[in-house]
Order: sequence, then structure tokens, then C-alpha cells
Amino acid sequence: MTQFEEYYPSQFLANAVKQFAKLPGIGEKTALRLVLHLLRQDEEQVLEFAQAIVDLKQKTHRCSICHNISDSEVCDICANPARDHSMVCVVEDIQDLLAIERTRQYNGVYHVLEGLISPVEGIGPEDINFSSLEQRVKSGQVKEIILALNASSEGEATSWFLFKKLSKYDVKITSIARGVGFGDELHYTDEITLGRSILERKPFDLK
Amino acid sequence: MTQFEEYYPSQFLANAVKQFAKLPGIGEKTALRLVLHLLRQDEEQVLEFAQAIVDLKQKTHRCSICHNISDSEVCDICANPARDHSMVCVVEDIQDLLAIERTRQYNGVYHVLEGLISPVEGIGPEDINFSSLEQRVKSGQVKEIILALNASSEGEATSWFLFKKLSKYDVKITSIARGVGFGDELHYTDEITLGRSILERKPFDLK
Repeated sequence: MTQFEEYYPSQFLANAVKQFAKLPGIGEKTALRLVLHLLRQDEEQVLEFAQAIVDLKQKTHRCSICHNISDSEVCDICANPARDHSMVCVVEDIQDLLAIERTRQYNGVYHVLEGLISPVEGIGPEDINFSSLEQRVKSGQVKEIILALNASSEGEATSWFLFKKLSKYDVKITSIARGVGFGDELHYTDEITLGRSILERKPFDLK
Repeated sequence: MTQFEEYYPSQFLANAVKQFAKLPGIGEKTALRLVLHLLRQDEEQVLEFAQAIVDLKQKTHRCSICHNISDSEVCDICANPARDHSMVCVVEDIQDLLAIERTRQYNGVYHVLEGLISPVEGIGPEDINFSSLEQRVKSGQVKEIILALNASSEGEATSWFLFKKLSKYDVKITSIARGVGFGDELHYTDEITLGRSILERKPFDLK
């Protein structure tokens, strides 16, 4: 696709389209549609939109304990005394943290790695939030680490690294259950998942 | 969908997601993905993005002649002496103008209505840029008006209204050709288009 060789009647229009087209999954045509939509809004609404983006970058922080996004130094999960601070769920990024929160099944706290180890891409342990996790474990307050990383080669490498590094401390290390999803059709489930779900079968109960 | 009842660890994050989710075709999940992408960018890039949106709204104008988007009072199409100013193509919006420009087949000028007449939605001739079009025709500089509006009921109603109002002036009024698209399969073409393409057949030539 030859991008931005098109005619635009305004450099400001062209620039706004260019900026939107940098976003993941947004092509030039979609960007133009979004920009023309914004242009039809009242100035107040457009300025609110722009301000929200500025505030997003300038007023949010990373929680000093778990690296969750936060408006204050410590995020509201880490600051919540009703959560179990002895159980730390390790996730790759905020999206995975939010996905787990959405289940309403988890009452522990988190640790956001902000990345996965990837030898291919040259991302090592020092490039993810590992040392702060090790500090938390070292402090002795953590009883269980739940590894909730994707089953990609990077996810597996990272889980393996974390297990190797953290198992020397007095902490239980678990991993989220993998198997056939509720609602999934068996004959559409990939072979690795289905094979493992048989090997790792568990006693049937009526719950 | 119950929107924005989800947990967000930051009100600024939540607000940015809310703003993005107001854009057409962007749901809350996509909005979150876009916002987290922005959050990973350098501050400079994020501020550039926000500034592009502010500039879009504050620094663009509507061309005083044709209502195209422009950085100056008169757009670069209307200001271009190489274009044929006696031929005015009437379009609904900027997207349609850009689509015609993209063909590189048209050397006349435009008139952007910024809407279509819709009795159902209470949009009358005074709500679209009709009076400025009539003024242009009245001035006597326009020899041909090309109606390039969608074949929707609003498009047809608007074309019909423009024809009725403008045919009293000394101006030729034409409409873009409709028919089976190049590359379209005949048996997938809708009946109205195919039927009309037979009624409005034209002499075969080898060009």
C-alpha cells in the first residue's frame, strides 16, 4: 500500500490521518473516517478527546509495587487491604491483568512484567520487571506465585525462567490451568490442548 | 453491552478508553488496545498525536467557495487556475470528494453539501450547503453541474431537489454514470443496477 501519497486538502487533516494510521489495526481509510468524525464534533468535545490523551500519558504512573497502571504511587489493588497480598499473579501486561479482574474470581494481587523474555528479539530478564518481583518474594510476604503467561514460546521461556529463579525461595509456584475451554468444541480444540487435557485429567465432581 | 462498568486501575486510563470508544466502529476492547498502545509510546509522540487532533479542529476551515476542508480561506482546488471552474461536481461530503480526486479523472471543481436532504430526519435544503451552490450557478460562471450523490433515498431526494431548483438557470445538469462496476460479476449485481444498465446501454466501442 502506498500510504500518504494521496491528496489531502489540508495538511492538518493529513497529519491527523497520519497520526491515527499509526495506531495498531487502523489503516489510512479508517483513520480518515475517524478524523472526519472528529471534525464534525463540537470543538469542546474534540479538545476533551485531545486532553484525555495528554492526561493518559502525563498523569498515569506505574504502581511502584506491581507496575499496574495507577493514578497514584501505589495502585488501588495493591492499596486494598481486602486483597490477599500473599498471592501474586504474574501477568505479561495490563490487558491480561484486566482480563483476570473481569472474571471476579481472583482476590490476590498482581505483578505486571511489561514484557516477556525473548532471546530471538533480544529481550532478556533485565528488560522485564523481574528484579522487583524477586524483591517482593525475598521480603517473605509472598506465599504463592501464580504464573499466568501466554502459552507462546516467549511465555513458556519466561515461566521457566521465573520458576528457576524463584523456586529457591520459600514460595509456592503455580500456573493457571490449561485445558479445553468451557463452551469449546472438542473436535475444534488444538491437539496440544486436547492431549494435555487428557494427561492432566482430574477427578469428576458434580460442582 | 454494559459499557464502562469494568474495572480500570486509573481514571485517566478509563477516560481515554471512553473517548476512543466514542469513535465510530471502535468498541471498548479496541479502545483499550489503542490506549495501551499510546501509553507505550514516548511522551513526545503522544503529545504530537494530541496536538494533531487540536490542530485538526482549530486550524482547518471550510473553503468559502466549495466547503472543502482547507488550511486557508479558499481550498487548493478552488485556488488552482489549472482546474476547470465552469464544471462543478456536487458531493455529499469530503470522503466522496477525496474518492473522486483519487480517480485522477476529474479536472473540474467541487461543491460539498455537508449533508443530504432527509425529510425523515428533518434535514431540509437550508441544512445543507445549497444556497452557496445556487449563488455559484447564478454568477453565470458555471456551465455544468455534475450530481455525484449516493443512490440512497436521501441522495435521490437531494438530486431531485437540486435539479428542480437549478434547471431554471442556464446550466447543464448531469449525473455520474451508474451501471455494473468494472470487475463486478453480473450475477452478483443487484437487480436495479443490472436492469438499469440494460435500459441505459450505450454503443459498443473498442476503447
